[in-house]
Amino acid sequence: MNLQPITDLQRLCIHTITVKPWNIGEIAANFSSAGVKGITVWRDTLAGRDIRQTGRMLRDHGLSIVSLCRGGFFPSADRARRRAAIDDNRKAIEEAHELGTDLIVLVCGADPSQSLEDSRKQIHDGIASVLPDAESAGVRLAIEPLHPMFADTRSAINTLAQANDLAEILESPSAGVAVDVYHLWWDPDLEKEIKRSGKNGKLFAYHVSDWKSPTVDMLNDRGLMGEGCIPLKKIRSWVEDSGFSGFIEVEIFSDIYWSRDQHSFLQDIVSSYKKYV
Amino acid sequence: MNLQPITDLQRLCIHTITVKPWNIGEIAANFSSAGVKGITVWRDTLAGRDIRQTGRMLRDHGLSIVSLCRGGFFPSADRARRRAAIDDNRKAIEEAHELGTDLIVLVCGADPSQSLEDSRKQIHDGIASVLPDAESAGVRLAIEPLHPMFADTRSAINTLAQANDLAEILESPSAGVAVDVYHLWWDPDLEKEIKRSGKNGKLFAYHVSDWKSPTVDMLNDRGLMGEGCIPLKKIRSWVEDSGFSGFIEVEIFSDIYWSRDQHSFLQDIVSSYKKYV
Repeated sequence: MNLQPITDLQRLCIHTITVKPWNIGEIAANFSSAGVKGITVWRDTLAGRDIRQTGRMLRDHGLSIVSLCRGGFFPSADRARRRAAIDDNRKAIEEAHELGTDLIVLVCGADPSQSLEDSRKQIHDGIASVLPDAESAGVRLAIEPLHPMFADTRSAINTLAQANDLAEILESPSAGVAVDVYHLWWDPDLEKEIKRSGKNGKLFAYHVSDWKSPTVDMLNDRGLMGEGCIPLKKIRSWVEDSGFSGFIEVEIFSDIYWSRDQHSFLQDIVSSYKKYV
Repeated sequence: MNLQPITDLQRLCIHTITVKPWNIGEIAANFSSAGVKGITVWRDTLAGRDIRQTGRMLRDHGLSIVSLCRGGFFPSADRARRRAAIDDNRKAIEEAHELGTDLIVLVCGADPSQSLEDSRKQIHDGIASVLPDAESAGVRLAIEPLHPMFADTRSAINTLAQANDLAEILESPSAGVAVDVYHLWWDPDLEKEIKRSGKNGKLFAYHVSDWKSPTVDMLNDRGLMGEGCIPLKKIRSWVEDSGFSGFIEVEIFSDIYWSRDQHSFLQDIVSSYKKYV
């Protein structure tokens, strides 16, 4: 395994949802003080704010805005909802442009009242509909495969192979994939598919956290890096061997960590990042 | 979709754990009264009982003993535990022989303190160790891939492709696979891999239940057939097109159903089986 140790925070990005109790002003100040260099902004943190001004505020704190999270949720058995989803993704592209980031993460969606095949077709069609807008705005779209335990309502794209297939079919420099270890660590084809993403220039984002044993909640019990069984260093070696040198994004949904003091949690994120990623 | 409707209970098998509040004597009498023709026996129900006599009792109630559940749990970073697992699987083979069933379902196991690759190698080696015993006893071993959400502690075999690969490598007429819709419904390769199992004569067992939206517990919140989003008829058509004509086994772990009156639950299983499977 050919892997450079992490000695600084130049590539550390943290998602706003990871420290959900803080508003975006607090996040900017606290990330900056801790030496964190990147931020991925969840759209809920922008509600009621001037987006351009928020982007300037984040950059003034020395933060790179790595991505906007999230677009997607294209499938529905109801045509009006599919149209509304496309409108919302166009809005996300505008928001990304105003915020000053060139990347949106797509949680593709699924509708349990229809087949996975139908949901997958609607995901393709939805992304294809908004891709011209993304290209015009200089915004890339990262298709994030989600763990199969979310195939009912959150995403019908559940393996990196599927995301790679879709990104290739869409044939646009603005369509690529996001690799999140929490969703993909179990996949026996992961190394092969990460190499495929990288070779095709399609690996747009890399997200880390950990899988705890036991995991007591499917959505909000992710672990801090090092706390679980995901082979983080091995997967990072695959990601970097594939040519990726971008930010490493910490995305943790955790009722446990959200209920803790966020300053001490942020220190733990930084030390776990250095030690275990 | 080429599918015969279900008009009787000739192929209906229910796992003892599905009606966990009942002991095996109650289960035998109640399945028999309801017209259920098959039973898969979980080993906990045999504790403290004469196994040959229990087998006779079940057959006297007109029940086919479809399989013994479960062997497996081979991986461990600790060698003594791996040896103990092999001994326990030899014991399960003896129990199956005494009970009078020719099939054991394997939940393969995983140890989060080591890599998935190590766990997978130990699963291969464990099954290979006990296969000669299984062959001598006339007992077949069905490798059951488990949902990726169980990759940390329950099984490092998470897709039917992996189970098929393993069954083929083991090169024994006693090594095959079990298809459980709960674990596999999300897999984009499912149809292809079911055909592969069937073509090779390796499809030994077919388990049904449903995936509820939302699912509130990873282990014990399975749905009754028709209650969730699994395309049961479509998957049965693939299974039967592959040549499988054996029992259809209802395996539901559910705190909700276990807390209900089991007689009325059993009636619901029978009607859901006829309507939705």
